[in-house]
Amino acid sequence: MSGRPFLQIPGPTNVPERVLRAMDRAVIDHRGPEFGQLVQGLLPDVAKIFKSERGKVVLYPSSGTGAWEAALVNTLAPGDRILAFNYGHFSAQFAEAARNLGFDVELVPLSWRRGLAGEQVAERLRGNRGQPFKAVLVVHNETSTGAVSDVKAIRAAIDAGHHEALLIVDTVSSLASIDYRMDEWGADLTLTGSQKGLMLPPGMALLCAGPRAIAAGERGGSPRNFFDWRPILKDNAAGFFPYTPATLLLFGLREALDMLFEEGLEHVFTRHTRLAEAVRKAVGAWELEILCEDQGAYSNSLTAVMMPDGLDSAEVIRIARERFGLDLGVGLSQIKGRVFRIGHLGALNELEVLATLGGVEMALREAGVPITLGSGVAAAQESFFGDASRALAGVPVEQPIAAR
Amino acid sequence: MSGRPFLQIPGPTNVPERVLRAMDRAVIDHRGPEFGQLVQGLLPDVAKIFKSERGKVVLYPSSGTGAWEAALVNTLAPGDRILAFNYGHFSAQFAEAARNLGFDVELVPLSWRRGLAGEQVAERLRGNRGQPFKAVLVVHNETSTGAVSDVKAIRAAIDAGHHEALLIVDTVSSLASIDYRMDEWGADLTLTGSQKGLMLPPGMALLCAGPRAIAAGERGGSPRNFFDWRPILKDNAAGFFPYTPATLLLFGLREALDMLFEEGLEHVFTRHTRLAEAVRKAVGAWELEILCEDQGAYSNSLTAVMMPDGLDSAEVIRIARERFGLDLGVGLSQIKGRVFRIGHLGALNELEVLATLGGVEMALREAGVPITLGSGVAAAQESFFGDASRALAGVPVEQPIAAR
Amino acid sequence: MSGRPFLQIPGPTNVPERVLRAMDRAVIDHRGPEFGQLVQGLLPDVAKIFKSERGKVVLYPSSGTGAWEAALVNTLAPGDRILAFNYGHFSAQFAEAARNLGFDVELVPLSWRRGLAGEQVAERLRGNRGQPFKAVLVVHNETSTGAVSDVKAIRAAIDAGHHEALLIVDTVSSLASIDYRMDEWGADLTLTGSQKGLMLPPGMALLCAGPRAIAAGERGGSPRNFFDWRPILKDNAAGFFPYTPATLLLFGLREALDMLFEEGLEHVFTRHTRLAEAVRKAVGAWELEILCEDQGAYSNSLTAVMMPDGLDSAEVIRIARERFGLDLGVGLSQIKGRVFRIGHLGALNELEVLATLGGVEMALREAGVPITLGSGVAAAQESFFGDASRALAGVPVEQPIAAR
Amino acid sequence: MSGRPFLQIPGPTNVPERVLRAMDRAVIDHRGPEFGQLVQGLLPDVAKIFKSERGKVVLYPSSGTGAWEAALVNTLAPGDRILAFNYGHFSAQFAEAARNLGFDVELVPLSWRRGLAGEQVAERLRGNRGQPFKAVLVVHNETSTGAVSDVKAIRAAIDAGHHEALLIVDTVSSLASIDYRMDEWGADLTLTGSQKGLMLPPGMALLCAGPRAIAAGERGGSPRNFFDWRPILKDNAAGFFPYTPATLLLFGLREALDMLFEEGLEHVFTRHTRLAEAVRKAVGAWELEILCEDQGAYSNSLTAVMMPDGLDSAEVIRIARERFGLDLGVGLSQIKGRVFRIGHLGALNELEVLATLGGVEMALREAGVPITLGSGVAAAQESFFGDASRALAGVPVEQPIAAR
Repeated sequence: MSGRPFLQIPGPTNVPERVLRAMDRAVIDHRGPEFGQLVQGLLPDVAKIFKSERGKVVLYPSSGTGAWEAALVNTLAPGDRILAFNYGHFSAQFAEAARNLGFDVELVPLSWRRGLAGEQVAERLRGNRGQPFKAVLVVHNETSTGAVSDVKAIRAAIDAGHHEALLIVDTVSSLASIDYRMDEWGADLTLTGSQKGLMLPPGMALLCAGPRAIAAGERGGSPRNFFDWRPILKDNAAGFFPYTPATLLLFGLREALDMLFEEGLEHVFTRHTRLAEAVRKAVGAWELEILCEDQGAYSNSLTAVMMPDGLDSAEVIRIARERFGLDLGVGLSQIKGRVFRIGHLGALNELEVLATLGGVEMALREAGVPITLGSGVAAAQESFFGDASRALAGVPVEQPIAAR
Repeated sequence: MSGRPFLQIPGPTNVPERVLRAMDRAVIDHRGPEFGQLVQGLLPDVAKIFKSERGKVVLYPSSGTGAWEAALVNTLAPGDRILAFNYGHFSAQFAEAARNLGFDVELVPLSWRRGLAGEQVAERLRGNRGQPFKAVLVVHNETSTGAVSDVKAIRAAIDAGHHEALLIVDTVSSLASIDYRMDEWGADLTLTGSQKGLMLPPGMALLCAGPRAIAAGERGGSPRNFFDWRPILKDNAAGFFPYTPATLLLFGLREALDMLFEEGLEHVFTRHTRLAEAVRKAVGAWELEILCEDQGAYSNSLTAVMMPDGLDSAEVIRIARERFGLDLGVGLSQIKGRVFRIGHLGALNELEVLATLGGVEMALREAGVPITLGSGVAAAQESFFGDASRALAGVPVEQPIAAR
Repeated sequence: MSGRPFLQIPGPTNVPERVLRAMDRAVIDHRGPEFGQLVQGLLPDVAKIFKSERGKVVLYPSSGTGAWEAALVNTLAPGDRILAFNYGHFSAQFAEAARNLGFDVELVPLSWRRGLAGEQVAERLRGNRGQPFKAVLVVHNETSTGAVSDVKAIRAAIDAGHHEALLIVDTVSSLASIDYRMDEWGADLTLTGSQKGLMLPPGMALLCAGPRAIAAGERGGSPRNFFDWRPILKDNAAGFFPYTPATLLLFGLREALDMLFEEGLEHVFTRHTRLAEAVRKAVGAWELEILCEDQGAYSNSLTAVMMPDGLDSAEVIRIARERFGLDLGVGLSQIKGRVFRIGHLGALNELEVLATLGGVEMALREAGVPITLGSGVAAAQESFFGDASRALAGVPVEQPIAAR
Repeated sequence: MSGRPFLQIPGPTNVPERVLRAMDRAVIDHRGPEFGQLVQGLLPDVAKIFKSERGKVVLYPSSGTGAWEAALVNTLAPGDRILAFNYGHFSAQFAEAARNLGFDVELVPLSWRRGLAGEQVAERLRGNRGQPFKAVLVVHNETSTGAVSDVKAIRAAIDAGHHEALLIVDTVSSLASIDYRMDEWGADLTLTGSQKGLMLPPGMALLCAGPRAIAAGERGGSPRNFFDWRPILKDNAAGFFPYTPATLLLFGLREALDMLFEEGLEHVFTRHTRLAEAVRKAVGAWELEILCEDQGAYSNSLTAVMMPDGLDSAEVIRIARERFGLDLGVGLSQIKGRVFRIGHLGALNELEVLATLGGVEMALREAGVPITLGSGVAAAQESFFGDASRALAGVPVEQPIAAR
């Protein structure tokens, strides 16, 4: 296939060539001074991305699934009660991971068309009859549905119930694309992966552990070895790791952080708001429905689009890939075949969004969805021109939107 | 600027990552056996791109301008008469290069909105009163105007006049994107650069010299050293160069040729026909005029679009670059400010074309051109779906267009 | 520092530029067909490196430490008895990892100057009074001491005791540099990391699980999630992973395997024998002692060299790094300061060995060790020329050694 | 062949991975502002490498041979008399290039075992009977012989003769490895290529034209087009080129200059003095002769070593390449087979020199030269340790040599 592919799944995202180049280099001794300096520079900068001053950053050569495990085994003991909510594939899987590891998980079924509300957490906590929960698991941005949850309100709900439960937040598909404020919102532990907003290839799990999470790890936790963060935190103080770290990914992380800081984290969020709004306008122009039915919970990193009845999203996805080199996300588990997901997180710009929308339109039509070619693209273009969009971009109406 | 840039000038083109990677390697000894094998494999494969079995390929670390000089100084003596036609910036500059080198150039002024017709050459040859011309210079695809000339008809015109003139053809912006047949059409010497259809970075001049050109070089030519192809042809027989070649570009060329052959040269041409047709449909939808007024001469590697009166194309180009990371080609010399050029040669696919058109639309509207956003994109999408387009792609109507 | 660094720790090793380039590319959808084909091609080829036809390969984005954990939690239940032997830092740490995960580990202290002998295993098994052991942990090549253990003899010892224990072998610093034959020698489970003989950057754990290990995992094991190989084996059948894999490392693995097969696995082992023998000759010329006192157990992937009394190896290592850009391995735990380790595994050739030895000599002398500069280099050169070396290289005496 | 190759020909040199990575990137529009800034930053920095404040830098996508041509055709008219001296292959070839271009060249035959002395130039100028010479051609560091010429003395000789001749200096294999001072020594025009001390791949010609050279070009010169520096100097003022430049090489040049400035140009020269001295000590230890018989003219970027009578250097070179992946330079024209050349310019460090010498020793012995293995390596190591060497490195005796 000629030309550049469009990897618009909701992660992994397109790795910028600057990041690729930063990793295209000789491995260095992970016990030497150059490496120590690299790590000592990285850790506080990653914490800035989590917006945490109190938290400690922990990095593993692993994946988002590994990040879940690290979060759980460091802070909870086998048999501990965990409260979780099923409002999408990944929130359910996070709970399943906890069950697999031997925790006592209560999974509350909810709609997959909304985020998790503080009130839902409050209600469940009020109704609790058993042992107190030791942790509440939250997926900030449900990658399977495109709905964001209000972490601050959830914290308030937990606090209101005088619960001692740790608030553990998965930001795999939001961090560095959607605003997330660990300290301000009161999360105790936040986890993510490298391959989404951080613009790296997959292969790294990143956690930010607040004081209560670290304390829980000190006094308890599960039997653990690879994911035990105690030796890591100890060695990291001098810039090292107790195991062989993924050296080249760390060089890539350095470059990715530099890129985020150069653009400015708030500008990154504004850009994703602008791009996401354009995608949603396009869906409207196609007269299709967005899976998330709460406008206030729309995700700025991905949009799940519902298929008309009787048509399978897998066909749209297949056509997009085979004919146009465009990768879209499938519908997972209970919404398999019912939605396709457009990823718009990580390194991305306006023209890439237009290309993606244009490709989706052609795939939709080829699959038999009666849409008007160009209608979504036009709506997105209009959105890029609108005053609201300009305001979101923080630029005066007279000034070009993209002049960042 | 986040995301990937869109370099849609009519060359240099976007270098595929496969080609970049092939050049990201250790330099080797250009006198050693590995290098010799590389070169011996390259030369016949480059000749296939020129569609020449009789010609000899000559490579220089240089540019298209250097390719002009190599063509001229090897085959012509100072004072030799050359016939050239001014039907665009580059045809005029090629003539100017010849003048600078001391040749006696007759430059026939023509319209910049058409290619060069065989009849125009015939007419001028019939009217010649002076010394016979030793060479006729032709730019196959005028990069400044987007018009293709009929090389076969020009050859016939020269032959009809019983002229001994060498037919020297510049294929800088056509080779490997638009069909060109050196042997069949009767060109004596063809030249190009690396940075267009060959998908390489700039830095290499490539020539294919037919038997008459080589013979002319053997018996005459100008005082020359760097561009003298005689020692090159001699050393190339064993796979070497008389000077230090641009080693890494040659590794890149190997990869680029492999990519062209994998796709199939005829499929490459079909793809560019399909992409170019879509761009032209978009221009029509915008109700703007294509500079080239001869539909039969439309270029499949670039399209020059005329601005409405009173509006400067430089403004469109500036907005496209600054706001959308989209690089377009300017209008050159006599059409400065009057046109902008969309490059659609080299490594390129449908979605990249849609992104480009979407960006052009936004830049046009921002510059005050009253177009309907999305209209060009929609026309391009329709074009990708049309039966004619399918036929051009050589696929049955039932089969996906892009399934190549 | 100008020029190329010499990373001669016993891993990570120097990543060949071919491998780096293979990873310097766009990430692809790990649910798409291109990825599926990549994985389906990789798995049997990795099994060839383990020399196993019966085993199933399992890959994790992780490290060697993660590979230990994967091996243990999939096959053993909490409280299961494990037999391990302390004959170096990593054999002790492997046991410690098992303890941390809640297994009942018996760790037999042995000399750090030898490998583990079959008889030592037999003796301990004969003397067992408690519950039967469920697993025996073996480090094939002790990275901290440079001694190889006889896995085949260990298997025989286990079998002789009619024990049902699984034989779990760590080949982190041997696989793909030193011959290892999983099926023939009867290992049930073998694990390694990406960053040694496989010539990749760190970030991947690789296991090969034989039928008994897989059966143990099916019927039992520990609570587990990330490292649970059951869903991986299930999804791998179609070329996929239940989590996001380290896509780019897998492309690197493809290239590394290609390189190993191009050279020929047996030739790779012969090369390391030749290089290791030269290093040992150099140590002899320096009149220093090799830590491993059993010549039959000399490691062909690293050599641990003992310091003269009263001198600290850390000083040699510091000088080598700071003055000559040469990274050597430190002495770990009980031999800290007493040895330095020269890594000679992975991608390596004769001249790199000479450079390394030359650098070690200068660092030794600067640190006050009374050696003759050039003596070790000369001994290595002689070794490269010797007939025995030629025979090892599988080439006739008349033929150049390195003509591979 | 496993491991890293040793490209120790006297150029092209090993391109550092930092430089390779800087070129592994998207091509940008060479008419856009980003490119303009790149060029405007590059030109004065290249001038610093030439040590010229008065000169103008001119860059071509070409080779060293092209740099010769650019120097000649811009400043001299056909038929102009040129004085040149044959003291090596490249000084002779430079003269030959001038002859091919139609100049009237007087080539004075000299010994190939020395550099060009000021007195030799003075003598020839005094004896001149014909038209005055318009230019004197000098190769600063003869790449074929390893002898440096005294440019300052040559300038004095020209001045003493009240000659108006331009002093044109080839620094292809010296610039950025051996000290060269264009303004202070009075050269009018200096030229070089990218692939030696500048650590880039081949493909770029670099000139620094002083005021008298530029003036000569303004008022005269030869018919010229590609190499005409007038339009380049004009466009360069705004950061552009009249032709398509080798964009990626310019990004590489930026990185290479940064590396040179980071190390410090004087430290670069000191490093090459130290490395060259070690190589010469090794040749002494082998009891072989250095081609250059004037110790004061020893080149610090390469050493040509004479073979014992009856033995062919081509055999040594073949063995080094085939057996050890070591590329050495051949003997050219009149010294073909008589010498081999060790390149030690560009990016290089002590251990790479030891590896090279170790490889040369093995190749020499295999070729039948009766040397003691390790003797040259030991001599080089001793040289790295000597106080004189420390002083050259500008470090106190107590301090590590390589701590730069």
